[in-house]
Amino acid sequence: LSSCVCLEKSEYNTYSYDPTMYGRYTQDLGVYAKEEAARLREGSQRRSVSERSRTLDLLEYDKGRCAKCRICTVRCQKFLISRVGEDWIFLILLGLLMALVSWVVDFCIAICLQAQKWMYGGLDSNVFLQYLAWVTYPVVLITFSAGFTQILAPQAVGSGIPEMKTILRGVVLKEYLTFKTFVAKVIGLTCALGSGMPLGKEGPFVHIASLCAALLSKFMSLFGGIYENESRNIEMLAAACAVGVGCCFAAPIGGVLFSIEVTSTFFAVRNYWRGFFAATFSAFIFRVLAVWNRDEETITALFKTRFRLDFPFDLQELPAFAVIGIASGFGGALFVYLNRLIVQFIRKQKAINKFLMKKRLLYPALVTLLVSTLTFPPGFGQFMAGRLTQKESLVTLLDNRTWAKQGIAEEFDYISHSQAWKHPQVNVFVTLVLFIVMKFWMSALATTIPVPCGAFMPVFVIGAAFGRLVGESMAAWFPDGIHTDGTIYPIVPGGYAVVGAAALSGAVTHTVSTAVIVFELTGQISHILPVMIAVILANAVAQSLQPSLYDSIIRIKKLPYLPELGWGHHEYYNIRVEDIMVRDVRYITLNCCYRDLHDVLLTGHLKTLALVESAESMILLGSIERAQLQSLLSQQLGRPRRLEYIRERAAAEKKRLSVVSNPGSEDGSQRANHEVRFQVREATARGAHISRARFSWFFFCWQFFCSVICPLQSSPSSSLLLFYFLQIAEWEEQQLDEQVNFNNCKIDPAPFQLVERTSLHKTHTIFSLLGLDHAYVTSIGRLIGVVSLKELRKAIEGSVTVKGVKVRPPLASFRDSGTSSSENEATELHKLWDRHKSMSLPREHVPSDSDEKSQ
Amino acid sequence: LSSCVCLEKSEYNTYSYDPTMYGRYTQDLGVYAKEEAARLREGSQRRSVSERSRTLDLLEYDKGRCAKCRICTVRCQKFLISRVGEDWIFLILLGLLMALVSWVVDFCIAICLQAQKWMYGGLDSNVFLQYLAWVTYPVVLITFSAGFTQILAPQAVGSGIPEMKTILRGVVLKEYLTFKTFVAKVIGLTCALGSGMPLGKEGPFVHIASLCAALLSKFMSLFGGIYENESRNIEMLAAACAVGVGCCFAAPIGGVLFSIEVTSTFFAVRNYWRGFFAATFSAFIFRVLAVWNRDEETITALFKTRFRLDFPFDLQELPAFAVIGIASGFGGALFVYLNRLIVQFIRKQKAINKFLMKKRLLYPALVTLLVSTLTFPPGFGQFMAGRLTQKESLVTLLDNRTWAKQGIAEEFDYISHSQAWKHPQVNVFVTLVLFIVMKFWMSALATTIPVPCGAFMPVFVIGAAFGRLVGESMAAWFPDGIHTDGTIYPIVPGGYAVVGAAALSGAVTHTVSTAVIVFELTGQISHILPVMIAVILANAVAQSLQPSLYDSIIRIKKLPYLPELGWGHHEYYNIRVEDIMVRDVRYITLNCCYRDLHDVLLTGHLKTLALVESAESMILLGSIERAQLQSLLSQQLGRPRRLEYIRERAAAEKKRLSVVSNPGSEDGSQRANHEVRFQVREATARGAHISRARFSWFFFCWQFFCSVICPLQSSPSSSLLLFYFLQIAEWEEQQLDEQVNFNNCKIDPAPFQLVERTSLHKTHTIFSLLGLDHAYVTSIGRLIGVVSLKELRKAIEGSVTVKGVKVRPPLASFRDSGTSSSENEATELHKLWDRHKSMSLPREHVPSDSDEKSQ
Repeated sequence: LSSCVCLEKSEYNTYSYDPTMYGRYTQDLGVYAKEEAARLREGSQRRSVSERSRTLDLLEYDKGRCAKCRICTVRCQKFLISRVGEDWIFLILLGLLMALVSWVVDFCIAICLQAQKWMYGGLDSNVFLQYLAWVTYPVVLITFSAGFTQILAPQAVGSGIPEMKTILRGVVLKEYLTFKTFVAKVIGLTCALGSGMPLGKEGPFVHIASLCAALLSKFMSLFGGIYENESRNIEMLAAACAVGVGCCFAAPIGGVLFSIEVTSTFFAVRNYWRGFFAATFSAFIFRVLAVWNRDEETITALFKTRFRLDFPFDLQELPAFAVIGIASGFGGALFVYLNRLIVQFIRKQKAINKFLMKKRLLYPALVTLLVSTLTFPPGFGQFMAGRLTQKESLVTLLDNRTWAKQGIAEEFDYISHSQAWKHPQVNVFVTLVLFIVMKFWMSALATTIPVPCGAFMPVFVIGAAFGRLVGESMAAWFPDGIHTDGTIYPIVPGGYAVVGAAALSGAVTHTVSTAVIVFELTGQISHILPVMIAVILANAVAQSLQPSLYDSIIRIKKLPYLPELGWGHHEYYNIRVEDIMVRDVRYITLNCCYRDLHDVLLTGHLKTLALVESAESMILLGSIERAQLQSLLSQQLGRPRRLEYIRERAAAEKKRLSVVSNPGSEDGSQRANHEVRFQVREATARGAHISRARFSWFFFCWQFFCSVICPLQSSPSSSLLLFYFLQIAEWEEQQLDEQVNFNNCKIDPAPFQLVERTSLHKTHTIFSLLGLDHAYVTSIGRLIGVVSLKELRKAIEGSVTVKGVKVRPPLASFRDSGTSSSENEATELHKLWDRHKSMSLPREHVPSDSDEKSQ
Repeated sequence: LSSCVCLEKSEYNTYSYDPTMYGRYTQDLGVYAKEEAARLREGSQRRSVSERSRTLDLLEYDKGRCAKCRICTVRCQKFLISRVGEDWIFLILLGLLMALVSWVVDFCIAICLQAQKWMYGGLDSNVFLQYLAWVTYPVVLITFSAGFTQILAPQAVGSGIPEMKTILRGVVLKEYLTFKTFVAKVIGLTCALGSGMPLGKEGPFVHIASLCAALLSKFMSLFGGIYENESRNIEMLAAACAVGVGCCFAAPIGGVLFSIEVTSTFFAVRNYWRGFFAATFSAFIFRVLAVWNRDEETITALFKTRFRLDFPFDLQELPAFAVIGIASGFGGALFVYLNRLIVQFIRKQKAINKFLMKKRLLYPALVTLLVSTLTFPPGFGQFMAGRLTQKESLVTLLDNRTWAKQGIAEEFDYISHSQAWKHPQVNVFVTLVLFIVMKFWMSALATTIPVPCGAFMPVFVIGAAFGRLVGESMAAWFPDGIHTDGTIYPIVPGGYAVVGAAALSGAVTHTVSTAVIVFELTGQISHILPVMIAVILANAVAQSLQPSLYDSIIRIKKLPYLPELGWGHHEYYNIRVEDIMVRDVRYITLNCCYRDLHDVLLTGHLKTLALVESAESMILLGSIERAQLQSLLSQQLGRPRRLEYIRERAAAEKKRLSVVSNPGSEDGSQRANHEVRFQVREATARGAHISRARFSWFFFCWQFFCSVICPLQSSPSSSLLLFYFLQIAEWEEQQLDEQVNFNNCKIDPAPFQLVERTSLHKTHTIFSLLGLDHAYVTSIGRLIGVVSLKELRKAIEGSVTVKGVKVRPPLASFRDSGTSSSENEATELHKLWDRHKSMSLPREHVPSDSDEKSQ
């Protein structure tokens, strides 16, 4: 393991994790991850070495006529292998793979949706049968998808962007980048989207691309050593995220930007190249496949628009675009809020929760039934264009013709799918409003189903519908356009749809790059200024109300996170580290004894502890991981040493006794010795099953004495037992008083340090730059405090009041209602912890907070 | 000053600097910058406090009838002031200001160019007069521009992007962000571009926007304290760079991306928002001004194209686009190389250089004369569309009609400016080739003129011409297009021009965001895939051959820089810090004496020195700036203390002598005392003019003794003098042997530390993330080495061979020929340094490397 100072990723914890929305994360001390990594590395090294030696053996063995030929081949092979290490080969392979996956998934989804239409169309004689077909098909698909992912890899559930953000921050999420997850995600996603529910493929594609990258680099590491480098893999994951978005929308630039905004807080410009390269290649192949498949004549945009170029919009239409932006901002915040509310409602209702947890597939089936019943075309669906798939409705919404010129729905010439928006009795405005309202809650609900799914595309469609609504209203209001200089330029509602789509999806995800995605999706950039203005306004509104959808999921899933600094809060510059740091630092000194170690391990639960020179000087020398200390302590006072001591004692005792009782019989003493050994082993085995708290240790000792010592002595007196107990206790105390030997202990010699005057703003920057978990605060080498992610989070989210400045984002009260449960949990945790303290020996695996909370 | 651990900007040096290409940077120890900053801060605080108290006084005094009214006003004012601190107000103001500046500059340039055309057109009776007018006009403008900037602010010369990159890295460039520079840059730029030379406005606009931001925040700091925060200002500068590009091209997205790529290595996503917001607002206002001025009917792109939407290009045209990309890559590298070659040629030719330096305005005038003579329309200019301005030629090049259908130039219908490309005798291909070749070297030459100018736009135009050339050739080759499926889609040469422009400008600047800029400039995104492919290929080629234009200028100007890690070099992961670090670290111990301090200061020239506990333990306690140590030493052994000692000695001596010679006369002794004091003062004054080396100190002592002691004694014996000398030497030795008192010394308690196993890749990441200058290498708290920017640079650019890996980018030999001079300089420096060592007292201001080199 490369042992860098502060970018050391394995300082972080591994989260073993139940990835449904109801799940919580449990953490164990990064040990597993390290061991796993070491094992893998060792394994692959051994493999490659053995492989190479085998090749040479072969060469040696086969010194026939084609030896030269073989040598040449081996050399070529070596050259190829050295080339394989190049980044660009990896990126091209990744792009190719993802383009293929994306295309195949799209193809399968299209077939699924066609099948549903065919079934529905074929049964048009009987409405009930039609309904059954319309409803059963998605229910079956969604249930299968949910069940399949649940069984194969529960990690595949959901969008994947929140988890990728966490992984890119340096946290190791277990089982998150495995082949099983890949299979579950791809098949689950295809089924889920094939059902026609309002779900998206963008978030999952980010995850799939990362899976591809991880698996590819695992595969490539068979050839070259470079693929084992950890920081390189992180960089490749960042590029993979860009590829995911890029090949999903055929939008390379937007993909790169979106993935940056969504997954990073600090971005290396050199990764940006990688992302561009891979995403462009991927988008290119993705579109070329469409051309080869005769779907398209040449490479064009996915949702091509044909707005006029010479006069795309009037300057006086800008207020309308601004209104779309602001309304989308509120809408986006509402969507995030609604989504979280649904999750929390289901979680809180214990009765429902219990029932749903038992029958895990019932919830998806129920939600699907509800949604598909409402969209049933001959039923309510006729008022909300229910028979259109997501793609079809987007195409119609971006249409460059006006639907409701002068308010009369009859006037426009419907073609193909646009027909669906027309209803003989109902105005097109009503249809649009119904579509927006229904799809809004349906999407918020559908994205809580435990299947692989994203929320980007549904939100995008809703935004387009909202934009179309505003555009149609404008067109009805100004039938001849606003421009007054002679020429008539009618208003283009399709342009409004583009603006609305970008604004709403931008508001939900807190990104501005949706603007770029929208240009790349439609193939036209003429509306750049309205789109940018609307997206920025939407972001400004949404960011002041709610976290982004991905951050919201991160909080729901209790992944470790660092909130963003909202901008415009210059209090951040005035708060100093000394205001927020924890002054009562747990530390160990260089000359401490095992007793201190023991006490420190008992009282705190930090993952790393500071090592100082002495309690007086407090000069910080480094930090030690808790696991290291625990292994030190267990070396000194663990079962092996204890057993050894007892065995020694027993042997001495036995000798003494045998000398006293029967000095002559040699074989008898041998037999007794045998017996002692056997019983020691038996007692050890028994003891291993018992919990490790101290009382059990005494119990174990008691057993041991009863079984080993007592048989040797004909009449065991209670005073003798007491004497043994005291002796053991004395030995223990003696062991604890010895000075700790740090020689074989891994010490991080340069933990990250801050000084007390560092501002909160700078601290946040450093934490997010380096992906820190905690930092020590020192004053000329003296340790005076510690700041961890928790304190930082608290200070930013507003529960610290210093110097009269209340650090609280505006409208935070609105936000609080969503996350108030966390404080209750904290108090519960405290109780648990207090109860826990009564057990006095340090456990080897300290369960984390979340572990206890989930009890 | 906020005292952060490692982002402390004032750790860096201030560069006082002669910003012409011929200039070098000199550095002094950051002290000036700190004092300046402290002065400014103190001043503004005092001012704001006094202002506030004055308002209150006024209130107190004026308790008449309108007191309430006044209180209300003051409250409103306070509220407004608190609002002024918000980021968005600052960003809107910045955007507005820059849009106005950009528009006004454009307007003035247009007028200048019109005036030239008018003059040229009016004199069509006489070719010689026409020539005179054509040539004189630009010569006068360029000479004025060069002279004006030279006199007012030489810092305004050149593009400004290299300097902004350096500033954003945390280096303080003196006088670079002042009002004078702003005026010089704006007026100089207007004149330079008004002359019609092949120069661009993009680079200077980045600088102008940064100037605007700096001045605006200085102005705003009158209202609120937040504007004094340093890290906030850096963030605002990053946003300003985006605004600069954004309002120059009306390309907000491309502007943000381009500025990120060009100025940053690591980018905070939160600054990205700021950039987007400000750049969008600025671009919006910039285009709205055009609409209000009746130049445009509505907001559209600057260089609008009208390519067909349904079939923008055929899949089989992609190889042609790829060829454009690769050729542009070579072309871009050649441009950078040529540009540097010209600068170095002029610098090396001592005779030319001397002459040019004397008559600073001659070089610009000569270059302008040459270029404008060659473009004279009735002369050679007729074969290269010489009468078109840069803007006009770009518009014609992006035209969507084919110029040379089937190879016959006559066939296409010329309108307006396109006429210029037609020549009765010469084929349009010849015109294009001549245009490309001539403009290529002209642009490379013109950008070396010491006026405010950029190279982006000229390169962009050349790229468009190259693309047009390829496109026209393709159109001539395939008159009916390549597509074979019945429909005829003729080839669009304008699309090739777009691709060529993006590819060449991307190759010169090493950016991919030129693709986005091109979409925003043309208002069409239909060619996204060809453009992306060409840009990526061009970048891949250019990056492996040459540094970017901006990095090249950074090297020419000898600004501090850290080379990028090219990608695909996985050796970077295998090299460890221990391979490149300097093991022989200069350090001081906690209990060292002044003699050690003195020796350490003499032997090294690092800016900071490590403080360790003791030479045995080597535990790193912190780092101390050289200046701090020098002040410590001078406190102990400086002139004041020496004089004090001598005065004491003299007084004692005098007393002894006066007691011996004339014990009675009291007033005589007083007079003598007076005399002594006077002469001490005189001698001090004299000594101050003499260099500070030790021999001068002895000389000074000698003078002192001759003038002070000798007159007192009637017969000064040489033995007595020797005795005095020895006594003083003894005193000095005694002083040097005292232990250093670090109490009043500023120590950085937590300098950045690495461990020896950290990879080069990680080290580079950390250095560029945190903008470090050097980092200590420790092993469990023990200092074992130091790595500075220099070692890192050396390791990356390939002069370190470790573990058999030669870290050398491919084709580096080609690159070396350009920068080979640096090694010679290094050896010269070494000689100078060795010579320098012979002078033995530490100087208070150690001149930097570059300072000595320029001798």
